[in-house]
Amino acid sequence: MEFKISKDLIQQLEQLIQSKNDQQLEVLLNDLHHADIAEILDELDFDEATYIFKVLDSEKTAEILLELEDDLRENILQRLSAKEIAEELDELDTDDAADIIAELPQSKMEEVISELEDVEHAKDIVDLLRYDEDTAGGLMGKELVKVNENWNVLTCVKEMRQQAEHVTRVHSIYVVDDEDRLKGRLSLKDLLTTSTKTPISDVYIKKVDYVKVDTPDVEVARIMQKYDLEAIPVVDEMGRLVGRITIDDIVDVIKEEADKDYQLAAGISQDVEADDSILELTRARLPWLVLALLGGFVSVKVLGLFEPAMEGHKALFFFTPLIAAMGGNVGVQSSAIIVQGLANNAITGSIIQRLLKELSLSLLNGLILSAILFAGSYFLLGYEIHIGITVTIALLSVIIIASLNGTFIPIILNKYGIDPALATGPFITTSNDILGILIYFSIARLILGF
Amino acid sequence: MEFKISKDLIQQLEQLIQSKNDQQLEVLLNDLHHADIAEILDELDFDEATYIFKVLDSEKTAEILLELEDDLRENILQRLSAKEIAEELDELDTDDAADIIAELPQSKMEEVISELEDVEHAKDIVDLLRYDEDTAGGLMGKELVKVNENWNVLTCVKEMRQQAEHVTRVHSIYVVDDEDRLKGRLSLKDLLTTSTKTPISDVYIKKVDYVKVDTPDVEVARIMQKYDLEAIPVVDEMGRLVGRITIDDIVDVIKEEADKDYQLAAGISQDVEADDSILELTRARLPWLVLALLGGFVSVKVLGLFEPAMEGHKALFFFTPLIAAMGGNVGVQSSAIIVQGLANNAITGSIIQRLLKELSLSLLNGLILSAILFAGSYFLLGYEIHIGITVTIALLSVIIIASLNGTFIPIILNKYGIDPALATGPFITTSNDILGILIYFSIARLILGF
Repeated sequence: MEFKISKDLIQQLEQLIQSKNDQQLEVLLNDLHHADIAEILDELDFDEATYIFKVLDSEKTAEILLELEDDLRENILQRLSAKEIAEELDELDTDDAADIIAELPQSKMEEVISELEDVEHAKDIVDLLRYDEDTAGGLMGKELVKVNENWNVLTCVKEMRQQAEHVTRVHSIYVVDDEDRLKGRLSLKDLLTTSTKTPISDVYIKKVDYVKVDTPDVEVARIMQKYDLEAIPVVDEMGRLVGRITIDDIVDVIKEEADKDYQLAAGISQDVEADDSILELTRARLPWLVLALLGGFVSVKVLGLFEPAMEGHKALFFFTPLIAAMGGNVGVQSSAIIVQGLANNAITGSIIQRLLKELSLSLLNGLILSAILFAGSYFLLGYEIHIGITVTIALLSVIIIASLNGTFIPIILNKYGIDPALATGPFITTSNDILGILIYFSIARLILGF
Repeated sequence: MEFKISKDLIQQLEQLIQSKNDQQLEVLLNDLHHADIAEILDELDFDEATYIFKVLDSEKTAEILLELEDDLRENILQRLSAKEIAEELDELDTDDAADIIAELPQSKMEEVISELEDVEHAKDIVDLLRYDEDTAGGLMGKELVKVNENWNVLTCVKEMRQQAEHVTRVHSIYVVDDEDRLKGRLSLKDLLTTSTKTPISDVYIKKVDYVKVDTPDVEVARIMQKYDLEAIPVVDEMGRLVGRITIDDIVDVIKEEADKDYQLAAGISQDVEADDSILELTRARLPWLVLALLGGFVSVKVLGLFEPAMEGHKALFFFTPLIAAMGGNVGVQSSAIIVQGLANNAITGSIIQRLLKELSLSLLNGLILSAILFAGSYFLLGYEIHIGITVTIALLSVIIIASLNGTFIPIILNKYGIDPALATGPFITTSNDILGILIYFSIARLILGF
């Protein structure tokens, strides 16, 4: 059941392309799933990929187009005429077609739309283009099965058969009134198990979950996950049924959202992949590194202030990276837990409760770690007891401060509508570094007096 | 469309519980979705939650049970008799029932099983218990609609109606032979649009994606995502159809997998949430912190080796945290990109290509950052040019080494079947800290000679 691209297959394909053996190519590729062909095209060089793309018919290539890496899709679309692109789009669901069309430059977009054969399809696609891609409107497709509440089951089944022709997967049958306003739903199962004579108004379920066109995509994902929905209808400002979102589109949103939090925590500010170009990767990574570097300047400056400590307490400087790193690590842990909690809507209780909890947690962790540090500095590293006491108290303080920082900075950002994940990663590490060094040497000055 | 728990609602419920007004409670709660009630119970104290749980009927509580936080579910299950638990399980799909039963202590588990009313249901649940929870067998449910390839459509529809009674959502109709071996599938849409006289063997689709009972859950998730499947059949070693996995179970796997990578990167070794107990949080966080602390000891030791540099080159020690932090940041970035790439099966190309790319990338980033550092140390911080040259060369070297480390340690771990995400977070930060300090002072010794 597992498809693996073999080197043999790639070689075979390359030979067939060189000898322009289109017939053999078709035979070989027609057995494969479009997602697998997309994977193969990503492996081939660009000319070969385009060649294969032109050999296959548009029913297959349309689906392949959806699965390709962004760069390759963009390149292939550039080589296709408006008419050829329109042929691809005619094969696709409206939401997928709208996504692809939105990637085109404005002039080509209009040309492609004018070439679409199915006018209804074209209307639907144009409709979808006006929604923001991060909203329910941007996610939804127009393909759905709807019936009027005033129909009887017979009319309904007849109408549905016709509608179902255009719908790849029938999840739910939506019930609307004469104004197209969403009234409820009819499950396929009910349809299978109910006699055909029953009137619609008797069988349909009046309770139906829905979202509005402007509901943010992450909110749609949260609702569908919470209520275990495989599809959800989308209504406009008047409550009219305008589309539906299916779970497979939501899987992408969930994955992207989780990946994005991780990337931000790692100091990567755009959605990049290992296979993106060096320039794209640099754009995503460099800004955070520059920020960290500037923070580093501050730490250099702060350390410079404590230069007098070098007379007599050199060892203090050997412990600086340890204290700074521990502050960074604790801060990252705390912020990761809060950011994931906020993303999952799992942060409950009052601020005071959270403060007390984080305090106890960091105190517990801090005491254990400080004890290890004290023992280590004395027995393992052989430093005098004054140094040991200083670094131990400093570590405990830094851990408490860093963990409070890591917890409350994301919560505060979130309160003001800023993505809390921004506060993780290099930002929290760098600020905790600086704070840690400052606390450390201030405590040292108090204890050792320099 | 959005449900929000209000303080009013909670107060109202608490009053009704105190006055034991069960009837009003039922009226109030019956309008709510089980996922919303679960959210409410998580907010109430434990006695109140149990009280409500006992007031509602098992059809509703069974679903609520699934949505509760683990701790609360465990607590409530402890207070229920084996018979009461069995009543809940009778209402649930086999996969959900098996998940709950697996959480019970062995003796209670057997008692509960013996109390299950529906013997077929009980058999299915017991069957599911023997699969590892991280495999397709552990994810699958027994509820599915299957037809024999030798039937005609009429028998088929009759049989299906009966089977569909037990299945919440019909995704696909699977076709099997006389030995129950999976042969293909029949789409509901085909059924809607095909005349009832057609023989099954004429209409069913022979190509069907499936997984085996021992396929790992992340692999199932990958396949379902790649091929955009909403359900996938599961076969045993003989190719017999034994269950099906639906996309909603996979959504959890995908989310958990992405969250887990992020948590590991943040130095959290177990799946914990902000609302878990202090002890659970400590267990998840402390081991990584201890590891980082031990790494810190090494950095103290290494810095101690370069003590002679303090005579005349004090400034070197002011730059230590900056160099170490930059190494850590770059390493975390590189490893995050690789870990996500490995998780998404998006790492292609040879090791040599990747090496060259990472080298160019880190060289580009490193040169820009070093230039900033050089200018900053000279103009901003006012250090002499020798120090500037030293820290600049050190930073460039550290960035290159850290980025290679961050890239190749995960790849190597992955090759040996170890979770590459383990190499991110505190591990990569700490080792890059130590390495960074070592490289920095070695270069300083070469240039400044101490």
